[in-house]
Amino acid sequence: MVVTKLTRQDIEDLALGATVLGTGGGGDPYIGKLMAIQALERGGEIELMDPDVVDDDAFVVAVAGMGAPVVMIEKTPSGKEAAASLISLEKYFGRKADYIISIEAGGLNSTIPLATAAELKRPVLDGDGMGRAFPELQMVTFHLYGVKATPMSMADEKGNSVILDTVDNFWAEKIARAITVKFGGVAWISIYPMSGRKYKEAAVKYSLTKEIEIGRALNDAKKQGKNPLDVLLDVTRGYHLFTGKIVDVVRRATGGFARGEAVIEGLEDFKGSKLVIRFQNENLIAIRDGEVLASVPDLITVVDKDSARPITTERLKYGLRVAVLGIPCDPKWRSEKALEVVGPKYFGYDIEYVPIEEAVKKWG
Amino acid sequence: MVVTKLTRQDIEDLALGATVLGTGGGGDPYIGKLMAIQALERGGEIELMDPDVVDDDAFVVAVAGMGAPVVMIEKTPSGKEAAASLISLEKYFGRKADYIISIEAGGLNSTIPLATAAELKRPVLDGDGMGRAFPELQMVTFHLYGVKATPMSMADEKGNSVILDTVDNFWAEKIARAITVKFGGVAWISIYPMSGRKYKEAAVKYSLTKEIEIGRALNDAKKQGKNPLDVLLDVTRGYHLFTGKIVDVVRRATGGFARGEAVIEGLEDFKGSKLVIRFQNENLIAIRDGEVLASVPDLITVVDKDSARPITTERLKYGLRVAVLGIPCDPKWRSEKALEVVGPKYFGYDIEYVPIEEAVKKWG
Repeated sequence: MVVTKLTRQDIEDLALGATVLGTGGGGDPYIGKLMAIQALERGGEIELMDPDVVDDDAFVVAVAGMGAPVVMIEKTPSGKEAAASLISLEKYFGRKADYIISIEAGGLNSTIPLATAAELKRPVLDGDGMGRAFPELQMVTFHLYGVKATPMSMADEKGNSVILDTVDNFWAEKIARAITVKFGGVAWISIYPMSGRKYKEAAVKYSLTKEIEIGRALNDAKKQGKNPLDVLLDVTRGYHLFTGKIVDVVRRATGGFARGEAVIEGLEDFKGSKLVIRFQNENLIAIRDGEVLASVPDLITVVDKDSARPITTERLKYGLRVAVLGIPCDPKWRSEKALEVVGPKYFGYDIEYVPIEEAVKKWG
Repeated sequence: MVVTKLTRQDIEDLALGATVLGTGGGGDPYIGKLMAIQALERGGEIELMDPDVVDDDAFVVAVAGMGAPVVMIEKTPSGKEAAASLISLEKYFGRKADYIISIEAGGLNSTIPLATAAELKRPVLDGDGMGRAFPELQMVTFHLYGVKATPMSMADEKGNSVILDTVDNFWAEKIARAITVKFGGVAWISIYPMSGRKYKEAAVKYSLTKEIEIGRALNDAKKQGKNPLDVLLDVTRGYHLFTGKIVDVVRRATGGFARGEAVIEGLEDFKGSKLVIRFQNENLIAIRDGEVLASVPDLITVVDKDSARPITTERLKYGLRVAVLGIPCDPKWRSEKALEVVGPKYFGYDIEYVPIEEAVKKWG
């Protein structure tokens, strides 16, 4: 079985790369990274395993933080909350999880499973349920392959816990979101309990390796004397959509989400243009001078113009000089069924999804 | 062990008496009664047992409907929902309930445990957690005696279910209420799992017998040629607070509750006076010409002026001729600790609680 024992540097790289793929959401990278590194330093080990060698009847569970990222910055978790949610789900099933997985790519949601894994001594599988981040529970590849989100567990930092068993994944989202709001805006969840067989079929494989690769390239760019933005575009196979200065950010935490938009005024090659990015935890759509450049499910990532370090939606603010990247999503997201779940129409934008590779040809 | 097998007539009487003690809330009497009678007619039996003979280590669970009564009228339950919630809690504990109890007196919440008992073949204990109805989960005598509301289960008619385990009973109320709203306004819950020993210490004993007694007296009044209101005042040891015509009802379903007020213009001896009743599912306070006549935790019950049949808050409407009764609450509700939980101040009325027996002397 292919096993990598993650080092502190791996976690640093992974947190950075995951924030790039988190496309504005997926949680704050500092908190999750810190928790994983602390767990490692307390003597825990984090084993990252090849997804293809998992037994068909293994028991696989995703661990994550749920809620508006802006709240998570204010309510720093102790690291016990996510473990508590997994323990409570395991008690409900009467079975321990053989493997922990990450539900999505994101600063927090890629690293919190690592912290839980170190805490509870379980291996992590190299593949999540998105290859990016999305705001709602049913927006995972597991959902597309018929896996139920429930039974799922939720825990808060006070010691409250809940187990949900819903008729479908939309109901799971609806009820879990209301509980998250009552929990104070953040919940720690264990979700999508599934067999190894189903996991292998449905996961976005090797996404954690990809996160480490992206983070490492970005971390190494400076010492190698390379331009960080070029390095990032290269390693993500991304497209440079815009460079500019943020001139306005509107944001509100509502219904358990951080919704809003950022307006960016063009600089350099983009002088005279304006880019608007709309987000719901994650960046959903990028509109330049009234024209849609990129939309979900493709990734829209805002980075610092010079360092190319990703900026999550809760940290967007007036005056920041940024570059905006468009990155192709995993092919699993481009089926008709997938677009019903995560396409622009689901989020209320009445446009057809155009894959970013084609879109760039159009606006050249 | 003292066991009474309830007949159809017992259920009719109990539903009526429970609605009197439900003090405006506790759910619609028709639905619960119908469900219990149907279960009986399908061959089920409902055994009502003396609370004092229960084993100390027996496992006792309350079953109830939660939510705004007005919604319950529109979403008639099949009778399986409450049973589903109990089964899910039993699965969680890995233990079957030895006895089912009623959490409160009320048209629905006194009869739904009977229906569940007949459905699942479990006996019911003669004693609930209020001896009346109250709107929030922590407002039960069990809470006063340190019993935790959770682990509790919730189910809806669609098949969604939730198990909560909270740090205290206020958190149980807060989270369960949010879920009830997401469920569409009504949830079916199994709650306050406890030992027989704790139950015997904390319950309002013989409350079901009392409900049958009240209902029977009222049902028999007509054929015995007695004045129904006199009979009701006698059997409840209640006080006649007012008689009049409802001239205004304001009601809104908000946050999972039915809140509002009714204004009654005096008739007969009360001509020239005006009574205002404020409610939150249950009647909370009765104010005559600016003077508080009665308040929680004492019972305020609105009945039809002639038949003395109770009228729940969701059925109050313009033009009804009504009489209003004040009934002393169970002594367990009059301690300082109890008044913190269910006294007028908790509901936002800045007045001292005066037991109705004393209040009547003042304005008598």
